[in-house]
Amino acid sequence: MRRVESELRVRYAESDQMGIVYYANYLVWMEVGRVDYCRELGFEYRDMEAQDACFLAVTKAVCEYRAPARFNDQIRVQTWVSESRSRTIEFSYEIRLAGDDRLLAKGQTAHMVCDRDGKTIRLPQKYRCYFPLTSGGE
Amino acid sequence: MRRVESELRVRYAESDQMGIVYYANYLVWMEVGRVDYCRELGFEYRDMEAQDACFLAVTKAVCEYRAPARFNDQIRVQTWVSESRSRTIEFSYEIRLAGDDRLLAKGQTAHMVCDRDGKTIRLPQKYRCYFPLTSGGE
Amino acid sequence: MRRVESELRVRYAESDQMGIVYYANYLVWMEVGRVDYCRELGFEYRDMEAQDACFLAVTKAVCEYRAPARFNDQIRVQTWVSESRSRTIEFSYEIRLAGDDRLLAKGQTAHMVCDRDGKTIRLPQKYRCYFPLTSGGE
Amino acid sequence: MRRVESELRVRYAESDQMGIVYYANYLVWMEVGRVDYCRELGFEYRDMEAQDACFLAVTKAVCEYRAPARFNDQIRVQTWVSESRSRTIEFSYEIRLAGDDRLLAKGQTAHMVCDRDGKTIRLPQKYRCYFPLTSGGE
Repeated sequence: MRRVESELRVRYAESDQMGIVYYANYLVWMEVGRVDYCRELGFEYRDMEAQDACFLAVTKAVCEYRAPARFNDQIRVQTWVSESRSRTIEFSYEIRLAGDDRLLAKGQTAHMVCDRDGKTIRLPQKYRCYFPLTSGGE
Repeated sequence: MRRVESELRVRYAESDQMGIVYYANYLVWMEVGRVDYCRELGFEYRDMEAQDACFLAVTKAVCEYRAPARFNDQIRVQTWVSESRSRTIEFSYEIRLAGDDRLLAKGQTAHMVCDRDGKTIRLPQKYRCYFPLTSGGE
Repeated sequence: MRRVESELRVRYAESDQMGIVYYANYLVWMEVGRVDYCRELGFEYRDMEAQDACFLAVTKAVCEYRAPARFNDQIRVQTWVSESRSRTIEFSYEIRLAGDDRLLAKGQTAHMVCDRDGKTIRLPQKYRCYFPLTSGGE
Repeated sequence: MRRVESELRVRYAESDQMGIVYYANYLVWMEVGRVDYCRELGFEYRDMEAQDACFLAVTKAVCEYRAPARFNDQIRVQTWVSESRSRTIEFSYEIRLAGDDRLLAKGQTAHMVCDRDGKTIRLPQKYRCYFPLTSGGE
């Protein structure tokens, strides 16, 4: 599976009083990874929502924290599609320190393809090429 | 002018590595104050948006920081309308520590009344009673 | 296991352009639940850090999203300890709409007890009463 | 005064249910601008805190909102020092859309130089070269 890499620098706003990045912010970085993944493959996630009324609503998020990120650290997020079915997509992530490649966190987000009202739909055909089915069939 | 009081407790997520509340979060507390202000006066800001397509878009925000808030502190936000015109409203705020009433921050937010597309409109008549004009006329 | 309940109201800041609460914010609500859990049982998590240099660092977070929360919704978070060992604690959560008790999300956070430098330690004896061991021994 | 430019892309997390960036997030972007300003001039703000126990605590923030930023927009933040005295520094910012250079917001943050305990100090001599006094004397 193709992996796409994002780079970002830790903001002061993302730190907490323990002096490390607050745990919820890793989910924001996963979002940055997903959006970059779409762009790298050839479309803007924004357009998928705006032009095709197709949303990837999160149904589950998992994050394992291995080592803390800190303010000003340069971070690398690797994103790939670990499962793709007709109505669901799962992304996986590895979050590393840019300098020494140390693994800081890893996780997955599961998504349901849905319309503007949150009703499950099949992924529109025009996006199927970006998300080939990973398990024969549905 | 009538003042409405909100209470909230500082979240760990709102702290930063200096061990105090990150400065942008005071603007979130002002939002909590505004929404409580509307509820206390008799309507839900949510309904103003959803039912009347009337939005109070922020055009300016000012915050003066006097003393730091910290994780777990109990906070009191006082909110009042400091100016109300046909198409604009200004809220003012004082943010205090609940225990000893010490002033932590004060500020204002200026708002433009607008429709769903961001176009300026007059405040709908049904909300005028909550926001009496503060300066004779427009 | 004792369950502790927290109440909070969804902030505008927590919504996203899909019109629902952004997924990372549920982890912030879990933090609110944990901190309230400690208070309800008899101590302030703030003091655990400040007075005893004992930190509950998150090692894993899981959240399953069942139905969206929206701005202004009144939310109930139920928090309980689902596992407690000498050096680790796991909290579980159910996040519900206050009105009709509908389940919006559920999840767990796993924590490692550590000192100021992030080194694993045993939970200090004075806190053991709040976190009785759930599995015979270590 | 030297201006430093930062680039960032709007995150989904930063949008709100109005479909635009939530107003408090512009203050986070100002922080990104400040930190980049320091780096561009020759030092890391992180080191200023960690090695010299010198903090730039925010005493006032002002932001004027001219046009909304939206998810996925590429943003340019211009940052410069608009006032520098022995114990205080003021940064100014212009936030623009990268494509057509449209002004989205502008503002200032005033800072007090302080030590780890929040006590006002003079800016250490080693940093004075980066922040030459703007008004003859103190």
